[in-house]
Amino acid sequence: MSELITLSLDQVRDLSLKVLTRHGLSDAHARAIAEVITQGQRDECHSHGVYRLLGCVRSVREGKVDPLAEPSLRHISAGVLEVDARYGYSLLAFQSGLPLLAEKARSQGLAAMAIKRCFHFSALWPEVEAIAAEGLVGIAMNPSHSWVAPAGGSKPVFGTNPLAFAWPRPSGQPFVFDFATSAIARGDIELHARQGKAIPEHWAIDAQGQPTTDAKAALQGAMQTFGGHKGSALAAMIELLAGALIGDLTSAESMAFDAGVGAAPCHGELILAFDPKVFLGEDYPQGLARAERLFEAITGQGARLPSQRRFEARKRSIEYGVQIPRALWQDIQALLS
Amino acid sequence: MSELITLSLDQVRDLSLKVLTRHGLSDAHARAIAEVITQGQRDECHSHGVYRLLGCVRSVREGKVDPLAEPSLRHISAGVLEVDARYGYSLLAFQSGLPLLAEKARSQGLAAMAIKRCFHFSALWPEVEAIAAEGLVGIAMNPSHSWVAPAGGSKPVFGTNPLAFAWPRPSGQPFVFDFATSAIARGDIELHARQGKAIPEHWAIDAQGQPTTDAKAALQGAMQTFGGHKGSALAAMIELLAGALIGDLTSAESMAFDAGVGAAPCHGELILAFDPKVFLGEDYPQGLARAERLFEAITGQGARLPSQRRFEARKRSIEYGVQIPRALWQDIQALLS
Repeated sequence: MSELITLSLDQVRDLSLKVLTRHGLSDAHARAIAEVITQGQRDECHSHGVYRLLGCVRSVREGKVDPLAEPSLRHISAGVLEVDARYGYSLLAFQSGLPLLAEKARSQGLAAMAIKRCFHFSALWPEVEAIAAEGLVGIAMNPSHSWVAPAGGSKPVFGTNPLAFAWPRPSGQPFVFDFATSAIARGDIELHARQGKAIPEHWAIDAQGQPTTDAKAALQGAMQTFGGHKGSALAAMIELLAGALIGDLTSAESMAFDAGVGAAPCHGELILAFDPKVFLGEDYPQGLARAERLFEAITGQGARLPSQRRFEARKRSIEYGVQIPRALWQDIQALLS
Repeated sequence: MSELITLSLDQVRDLSLKVLTRHGLSDAHARAIAEVITQGQRDECHSHGVYRLLGCVRSVREGKVDPLAEPSLRHISAGVLEVDARYGYSLLAFQSGLPLLAEKARSQGLAAMAIKRCFHFSALWPEVEAIAAEGLVGIAMNPSHSWVAPAGGSKPVFGTNPLAFAWPRPSGQPFVFDFATSAIARGDIELHARQGKAIPEHWAIDAQGQPTTDAKAALQGAMQTFGGHKGSALAAMIELLAGALIGDLTSAESMAFDAGVGAAPCHGELILAFDPKVFLGEDYPQGLARAERLFEAITGQGARLPSQRRFEARKRSIEYGVQIPRALWQDIQALLS
């Protein structure tokens, strides 16, 4: 018996929809989440594919997430839109706000969307890719739970605080990156702990503030940021912009709000959109051509663009479908029984 | 005879003004530059203090920089301002645009200032600090000259591409960082080369694309970004936002424009300003208090905030003046003879 199950992308979407609606999510939430989970599985980001259904359902069962929350939009200024997720998942809030964010960016040149009070479990690249699909440049960031120590410190203050960026390309596939400002994803340390494997020294410190290669000690201590004091500065910037500036929780506050339940982190998210047509005016084609020359200077020397592996996986998945471990498939089926 | 000369900040400013006007810079340019050079010396950023007068004068003598250029402002949209530096230095352009940038940020919530066709030799922290002094949150970035290879590559594409950020604090001293996305400043490699000292392995690669500890080989090869593929992604983002988006040169184009003269890099700069009063409305005091709690969580465990050393130096310099090497002082005096 094969250890892998092959599914088409439509099957992934249908399975996700079925699980989510079965566990009480409104049709609108279920569709928004199923779409992003399908995108994650399609791009072979396995930790952001159907695996997320398990955590998604758990967070609803724990009573933290409102599965029926209807996001509400508030026009704050000509350049700023607030979307109150009302303690539902973030993805429907993003989807609800995107058209108005794009409209503001097109009229002002740049605009911000502050999503507030959302539960967050997804990568940011689907969001900045959706902004790039509108022909806009997108930036997204959010705090998470305070697992990461500042440079020179030993106690956790920051979340894994991801930063994502997308630039629209004429080919349709944007230049896009999405990275945690922590040295590594928390899930990777958890995986090492489960497998009893050592972690590299720069990933984390133990509860005494000493560098450690013991994954379990790392989970009791604090993760490190990537890139030393520079990564630490970026992590702080994200707490400020996607926390303090928009009037929502920092990673430490989000952790306190969770109160040990272990649900998806609840916090805000800041999304920026720039319209290159406004910035460039009649020089728009030259601006896009200049960006293409930059990409060519990178790929022409054999270096990869960020997300290139993801786009290659996408092509394979669209043609051949995706494969998931049978054990995971069975865990998901159990959610339907 | 002492090897160090002590000067008051007023003396630093006067000396700078005298040198700059003597070498043909307009009064407005000389004042803008002297102010920022004084700030650099005051904060003990020695490479951004009076030392810069030498390069500043050299770039004017080489005929690249227009010492009399008058920046012109163009309102692109409600959220976007363009300042054409007309091949003058960047600082007067920044100063000229700042009031309108602040006005746009206050009315739109966020705004962008694109400085174009400027020669650039200064740090970005004086600019984001000036934005924070307006009670706004500031971000600034620019390309430079293509000295830095993308992650996984061996040929230079990116500049040292600095990113700076400032958050206003009630105490008056903002939270501020300003770092190169290269592993290290190019000047540090030059200094090691002059002194015949080895450089750490992650700073650069040689012309064959191999990691090197030989500073001279590094200058013939390419610098590395900080933080591996994440730093490389940020460097690309800065080429795109502060180059392609605003219709100005990428670092490779700026290097070609210089044509081997070795003047200050000519390119554009992107500055963003956010008004927390617009984002937060009546929750403004709570938003600022939340930021202060974040800073306290960092400093309370003995970690430093970025720029803390600079602020300590500032305090000393305001009280006791600054010290510069006699040899440097003599080089500067020679510019007046």
